[in-house]
Amino acid sequence: LVDPLNPSAIGGTTRTTLRRIPEKAVTDRATLNAVLDAGLVAHVGMVDGEQPFVVPVAYARDGDRVLIHGSTASRLFRSLAAGAPACLSVTLLDALVVARSAFESSMHYRSVMALGRFTELTGEEHFTGLRLITEHLLPGRWDEVRAPLPKELKATMVLAMALDEASVKISDGPPDDPDDDVAGDAWAGVLPLTTSFGSPVEAPDLRDGIPIPTSVNALLKP
Amino acid sequence: LVDPLNPSAIGGTTRTTLRRIPEKAVTDRATLNAVLDAGLVAHVGMVDGEQPFVVPVAYARDGDRVLIHGSTASRLFRSLAAGAPACLSVTLLDALVVARSAFESSMHYRSVMALGRFTELTGEEHFTGLRLITEHLLPGRWDEVRAPLPKELKATMVLAMALDEASVKISDGPPDDPDDDVAGDAWAGVLPLTTSFGSPVEAPDLRDGIPIPTSVNALLKP
Repeated sequence: LVDPLNPSAIGGTTRTTLRRIPEKAVTDRATLNAVLDAGLVAHVGMVDGEQPFVVPVAYARDGDRVLIHGSTASRLFRSLAAGAPACLSVTLLDALVVARSAFESSMHYRSVMALGRFTELTGEEHFTGLRLITEHLLPGRWDEVRAPLPKELKATMVLAMALDEASVKISDGPPDDPDDDVAGDAWAGVLPLTTSFGSPVEAPDLRDGIPIPTSVNALLKP
Repeated sequence: LVDPLNPSAIGGTTRTTLRRIPEKAVTDRATLNAVLDAGLVAHVGMVDGEQPFVVPVAYARDGDRVLIHGSTASRLFRSLAAGAPACLSVTLLDALVVARSAFESSMHYRSVMALGRFTELTGEEHFTGLRLITEHLLPGRWDEVRAPLPKELKATMVLAMALDEASVKISDGPPDDPDDDVAGDAWAGVLPLTTSFGSPVEAPDLRDGIPIPTSVNALLKP
């Protein structure tokens, strides 16, 4: 029943140091990067008054920083662009851990939590940021479609946050039941969770003779 | 390039009213319940000083409230139990929307954002809450395993937040490209994303002759 997904990372001098399950903390930058590169959606937290808000966003990693984009008309994004303290979390679920008790049951997951403030990218960086976010979701797509129009660039801001204060946690391995439970009659194991892409569904207004693009086919590779 | 995952819900008298894409807002309670019931992980936001933190947690819906559980030694959970303002978000990704431009490309998703404060459940409600969270992750499992031990109950708190101030958003449908782009040569469509369970992996210390339980088999049904 102890929630394996609770990093309980709040407070302390290093704010992302994991207090409850430090053995799950990984400080390796390559591991952190790999988790960020594998996710599709991040949850960004920010504060309005004393109320926290958590919203899902598309994102991309750009070296040692993370990028998000949103409407220039969005109050959330304007607040983030103004430097409000923020938290960006990415969680990948890999399996249910089915232990011999509810208490020891948990999940396999990989999660990143990054603290910091965003800054708005301008000029060439703005354009490159949009490309990176598009390419993160669907590699190769950027070069298959037209360039953004000036009005589209104007409508969309790109924000960057340095990954200076970030932690990554990996939970894996079999259930860890006490001896009394292992000697009992309950089953124990791991039930893997996988996310996969199904067959592409053409847009109803797709013109005849336009094949599925390389970018989409690449995602469908077994 | 406009982020479809940004609800931009901050501010206003009804704080969860969606400002940017109101057509995606759904006020139906049944829809909200269905999204919460379909998710495995929630992201909970809370504030320490002026810093927001966003952590993944297991959860369950209990009627018109949502339950989470965590270690009684967790600073995060103690703070939430003390009534700190919180936000709980659940996001389900259903597809990539591959439009004819980066700007119009987006995702299909279902997302819930709930604002409020948690209270700690005690006595019978504490016990029932643990059952509901276990059953949410793996229906039927509670009755297959032993009851929680007193020390396990003591180590785990269950928190409840009323779903009084919550919104649900559903993004679906084909790409919505302008006529100029539809007339062009780019492909457009939707690429479905599905999450499924793989074959169970027995614990290395599983005793001989213990079959895969009904709860696990039920999740594997095609």
